[in-house]
Amino acid sequence: MKTDLLITGVAQLVTAEGAEAKRGRAMGSLKILTDAALAVTDGRIAWVGKASDWAGQAAAIVDVRGAAVVPGLIDPHTHAVWAGDRLADFEARTSGATYEQILAAGGGIRSTVRATAAASQDVLVKLARPRIEALMRSGATTIEVKSGYGFSAAAEIAMLEAIAVLAGSVGARILATLLIHIPPVDGTERRGYVEHVCAELIPEVARRGLATAVDVFVEREAWQVSEAEEMFAAAKKNGLAVKLHSDQFHSIGGVELGVRVGALSVDHLEAAGAAQIASVAASGTIATVLPGVSLHLGIPAASGRKLIDAGAAVAVGTDLNPGSSPLFSSAAALALAVRMNGLTAQEALVAGTVNAACALGLGDRGRLEVGCVADFLVLDSGDWRDLVYTMGANVVREVWVGGRRVEA
Amino acid sequence: MKTDLLITGVAQLVTAEGAEAKRGRAMGSLKILTDAALAVTDGRIAWVGKASDWAGQAAAIVDVRGAAVVPGLIDPHTHAVWAGDRLADFEARTSGATYEQILAAGGGIRSTVRATAAASQDVLVKLARPRIEALMRSGATTIEVKSGYGFSAAAEIAMLEAIAVLAGSVGARILATLLIHIPPVDGTERRGYVEHVCAELIPEVARRGLATAVDVFVEREAWQVSEAEEMFAAAKKNGLAVKLHSDQFHSIGGVELGVRVGALSVDHLEAAGAAQIASVAASGTIATVLPGVSLHLGIPAASGRKLIDAGAAVAVGTDLNPGSSPLFSSAAALALAVRMNGLTAQEALVAGTVNAACALGLGDRGRLEVGCVADFLVLDSGDWRDLVYTMGANVVREVWVGGRRVEA
Repeated sequence: MKTDLLITGVAQLVTAEGAEAKRGRAMGSLKILTDAALAVTDGRIAWVGKASDWAGQAAAIVDVRGAAVVPGLIDPHTHAVWAGDRLADFEARTSGATYEQILAAGGGIRSTVRATAAASQDVLVKLARPRIEALMRSGATTIEVKSGYGFSAAAEIAMLEAIAVLAGSVGARILATLLIHIPPVDGTERRGYVEHVCAELIPEVARRGLATAVDVFVEREAWQVSEAEEMFAAAKKNGLAVKLHSDQFHSIGGVELGVRVGALSVDHLEAAGAAQIASVAASGTIATVLPGVSLHLGIPAASGRKLIDAGAAVAVGTDLNPGSSPLFSSAAALALAVRMNGLTAQEALVAGTVNAACALGLGDRGRLEVGCVADFLVLDSGDWRDLVYTMGANVVREVWVGGRRVEA
Repeated sequence: MKTDLLITGVAQLVTAEGAEAKRGRAMGSLKILTDAALAVTDGRIAWVGKASDWAGQAAAIVDVRGAAVVPGLIDPHTHAVWAGDRLADFEARTSGATYEQILAAGGGIRSTVRATAAASQDVLVKLARPRIEALMRSGATTIEVKSGYGFSAAAEIAMLEAIAVLAGSVGARILATLLIHIPPVDGTERRGYVEHVCAELIPEVARRGLATAVDVFVEREAWQVSEAEEMFAAAKKNGLAVKLHSDQFHSIGGVELGVRVGALSVDHLEAAGAAQIASVAASGTIATVLPGVSLHLGIPAASGRKLIDAGAAVAVGTDLNPGSSPLFSSAAALALAVRMNGLTAQEALVAGTVNAACALGLGDRGRLEVGCVADFLVLDSGDWRDLVYTMGANVVREVWVGGRRVEA
């Protein structure tokens, strides 16, 4: 075998494997290969095994000298594009101000929408790039980025265009999602907005390839199940996948809708009860938990433990956003998932790799197996567990995407 | 005025100030000077003010171009010297193993004691240095490091000697504390150990200048109040300050003892009730909270809010250690204190600077005032609040100690 690259000197090569992993439902144990090597050709993994079993030729050899190697992390839920900041909101809230007082002072999500609308594409990209680079340094090689601070069709398109520019200018792989976040209007105008999203916005996004999925925030104060269902029908008609922000504060049927329409994932689930857990566990939909929100806002965390024990496949994301989760590390999201959502260390790595890939509809990554893209991390440790054990420091030494080391 | 250095272009220069700050009890509001500058002579702050008011001469000028400048952080509670690791414990515990099962498998604190005892001084220093450097990168300019994995007088001395070597080889200022952690023996031998600590260990530590304080872990399963009181009497007789690990799991009189003997600080306080809070609030003793432990172990966090509302002066530390707080960032400890201990953003900065200095008996740092040591941070932001708002990324751009920029 002739390959482009051989990574050798790997103390532990760690991956979920098997049929369950290929389907993105590998909640169980990891395969840990010691004294391993990994070969890459044309940006994909060509060979994995014990270093002593390698008998091929490689155009280049990189010795990682006893480091652990894990799949590149996949962050399946971010809102990394925004303008303005929410520092005054943060200071006010943590000083005891109510949400209503913050809104009255001009803060809250609508301040982010205003600032984002006022920013040029250049500014949006310039602001988002260091955030994406921080996620990359923390180990993310594929990052989902949502629109959703638009609140009008034109503004959502502008956000997706900025994400497209960003995707071309960073070393990580970026996936864009059209997020229909919060109703920008009330009453009959709200009805008109849903119709416009279905008839105009979703078809345009699909036609121009600006997103691969449509996400709707299903919540008492956001969109109702019937409205989300209409938008998901339009998404599917236009060949886009669907996802939900669901059961964050109230269970109003979001999980059940997601399961019914075959959503890639239902995300949040802090308020999900036994019925919702059973529903997603019996489905092919991924349950994505977002511990950064629970830590930042001090709200109960989704029970990853109950979800997994019921049979659900759990993924973890940062939910990076300025208002409810200023968490700039995908590895830290895994570390928090162990502490806050009750995942084991092994489950956290699975949740941040193969299951997160599945939450984005991607079957070619999140595992270190022949044929997968060669996206992997070289750790600053010989023991992969340091990645989820360590808090407050970065144990990712090198980030490789498509068989090339990227700098962030 | 002629000075060695002028730091200019400071968007916000932030410090606690006033008589309360000088006494390390500044829980209230910060002084935020905009468009500021700071001059340094002989490693100390020589002038602070509006940049437009500067009329002196400086041998060197550094323009921080719109960054915020805050006092260097003070980490008043770490166990940064250890050998071995607790990764297997972590994996077992987060997979549902009980503490007793982990002990039976050879894990727990005694495994750290065994590994630390088996390590040479060179190895201990080599292992600890990157941990100290991680804390420095996160903004710590003064770091307390405890012994306590010794469990014999000779082993505690060896740890303190390693800390002394470490102190001479890193850019941060290191303060050593002799920690009498857990009784190494039972029954009459336990009594003999206390006597040996009082008659031999503490005098030797004091004579050789190996520590500035004695810390005792007062807890049902550790030392009782009467034993701690004996050791504190020996400490004071030998000119050493005293501190306590107190009220972590049970309130057995540790806080009351600390207040009675004039301890610099009582640390942990997760189990402190209203009486303990009132006791420390009425005293000159600092209440140090350690949110990393609560996050890592999933135990309730100390109520920083109740402590402050009662009038206590609160400090924050990482408690960096392998078993209960693998938190390698002093800034992250402040960020967690806001989320977990109920501090406001301003209180968190005070807790991590001037109050933390007071918890170490140091009056010359933690504030940006004339005469204080010139230990400060240049942030990667023009707004100081980013330091406590941001999770999972480091917003410290430059660390200055004694008027010199240090690399870590």
